[in-house]
Amino acid sequence: MTTASRIEPKRTTLLESERLSDRLGASVLLATETFQHTGSFKFRAAYELASHVDAAHVIAASSGNFGQALALACRLFGKRCTVVMPSTSASVKVDAVRGYGAQVELVDVSQESRAERVGRLSREFPDAYIASAYDDAWVIAGNASLGRELAEVPGLDAIVCPVGGGGLASGLIKGLSESGSNVPVVGAEPALANDAARSLREHRLIRDEAESKTIADGARTLGLGDRNWEWIRDGLQAIVEVPEELIAEGARALFLLANLKAEPTGSLAVGALLADPARFRDRRVCCVISGGNVEPGVYSRMITGA
Amino acid sequence: MTTASRIEPKRTTLLESERLSDRLGASVLLATETFQHTGSFKFRAAYELASHVDAAHVIAASSGNFGQALALACRLFGKRCTVVMPSTSASVKVDAVRGYGAQVELVDVSQESRAERVGRLSREFPDAYIASAYDDAWVIAGNASLGRELAEVPGLDAIVCPVGGGGLASGLIKGLSESGSNVPVVGAEPALANDAARSLREHRLIRDEAESKTIADGARTLGLGDRNWEWIRDGLQAIVEVPEELIAEGARALFLLANLKAEPTGSLAVGALLADPARFRDRRVCCVISGGNVEPGVYSRMITGA
Repeated sequence: MTTASRIEPKRTTLLESERLSDRLGASVLLATETFQHTGSFKFRAAYELASHVDAAHVIAASSGNFGQALALACRLFGKRCTVVMPSTSASVKVDAVRGYGAQVELVDVSQESRAERVGRLSREFPDAYIASAYDDAWVIAGNASLGRELAEVPGLDAIVCPVGGGGLASGLIKGLSESGSNVPVVGAEPALANDAARSLREHRLIRDEAESKTIADGARTLGLGDRNWEWIRDGLQAIVEVPEELIAEGARALFLLANLKAEPTGSLAVGALLADPARFRDRRVCCVISGGNVEPGVYSRMITGA
Repeated sequence: MTTASRIEPKRTTLLESERLSDRLGASVLLATETFQHTGSFKFRAAYELASHVDAAHVIAASSGNFGQALALACRLFGKRCTVVMPSTSASVKVDAVRGYGAQVELVDVSQESRAERVGRLSREFPDAYIASAYDDAWVIAGNASLGRELAEVPGLDAIVCPVGGGGLASGLIKGLSESGSNVPVVGAEPALANDAARSLREHRLIRDEAESKTIADGARTLGLGDRNWEWIRDGLQAIVEVPEELIAEGARALFLLANLKAEPTGSLAVGALLADPARFRDRRVCCVISGGNVEPGVYSRMITGA
């Protein structure tokens, strides 16, 4: 029962909506990872990582999608998985990680940072592999599969993707490049967490001092990873900074005009088209919808504008 | 601009979710029509109708998905389209029908029924084609395309679909039969609007006296159409009656476990698995998600359980 087929990363789901295209003033193709295993593109990375590392135990800090993805991937490859999460995490997220078979270590972040707890675990389990959700060669290689898929889509003028730690953008750039595609990749970053945009402007890797309060929780990372910065510095065409209200407006447009449920971070690409319409007007643009996992209360507020 | 490709009915989107399957105790395949043009399966019917009827003007009463679908289909084939809607219809629905280029006739249903207004219009425009959303041979033929698609899916033990006027069930039965498939079709009907279930039990077509208040607005029809009753009487294996709270629970399960936005009527098939789990336990079941068009407020209440 449960699943008829073997679990491995699914191809992305490509969707078109005339009404969304009309609203955005561009011919929009949605590449949605909301129907990927565990509900986000992160499963591509986690699967690649779990299938390649030798360690029998993988440890990661993640309050979100990477934790769920890693939990499932480790289960598939018979590895132990420990995910460090803040004790304030929504119970649905903790339950999802546990449901995929991982052990959850809850951290009271007022007492100990997530990095400190991971450090403590790495000393306790010296043979474990410590996985970054973005600054990891396997993670970037896993995400590159999406770039290779999009390289097969004819006629694209641009691909727009959210930028947090930079794992998705890095993977897209790598995958497109491997496939010989020169479709430009444009990042979409919350204006409230614009470390990557500032880094591109100043030609050096800049990290935020404190975690942003942006609704796009997948983009609250303090900065790009070192490996990600190299890909992004050399390969990203531009970054559009998206105000909070346009992240929610993007989610609302996807709901109303494309019947697509997206999480806030997953709505950033559409938010970028709303924020900088002149850049995309009348072009053929692929918006990467990175994930769909969002709590009902947060989602309701976005779609009702409350 | 707008769309890169010609507009015609899209193939259905097939999705799997391990977590939804686990929750429902069956191996569930979702066949979702939420990404069909105009957001519901109705476009299959409307396209078939508009492409075949000779009349230059098509008139229909619809407060919902058929109106939008017919408006777009008539635009594609250069036909005039008039949609009769209650004056209490949500403005987003009226705007959508108008946005696809149809003329909307708003009726104060306390003064005149929708059928009376359609009758008046048919006398005013004697050459117009009066289209039923379900009791029409072209409509059933159009919906049969979904049956033919699902006949190609291997290993299904059952297909579950919502039942309102019976247009979708009729089409599925017809399409499966044309393809030589004998996968049983099971209907999912709101317990509050169970005229079809009562009809099957009593072996005669029974219509409700008054329109049901079920949240599944696509299933508020007073009864099956005559053509639909013939298909359903002879071809439907059973009907599961779904209580209101399980319609909402179905929508919530799709939201939480499959990242899929569905309208109340579109959630009926999942509600049927919740209502009668023993019937489907450990089987391979295709749930037809008929449409995704729902107002933000209604949807928020379903997913938050408010």
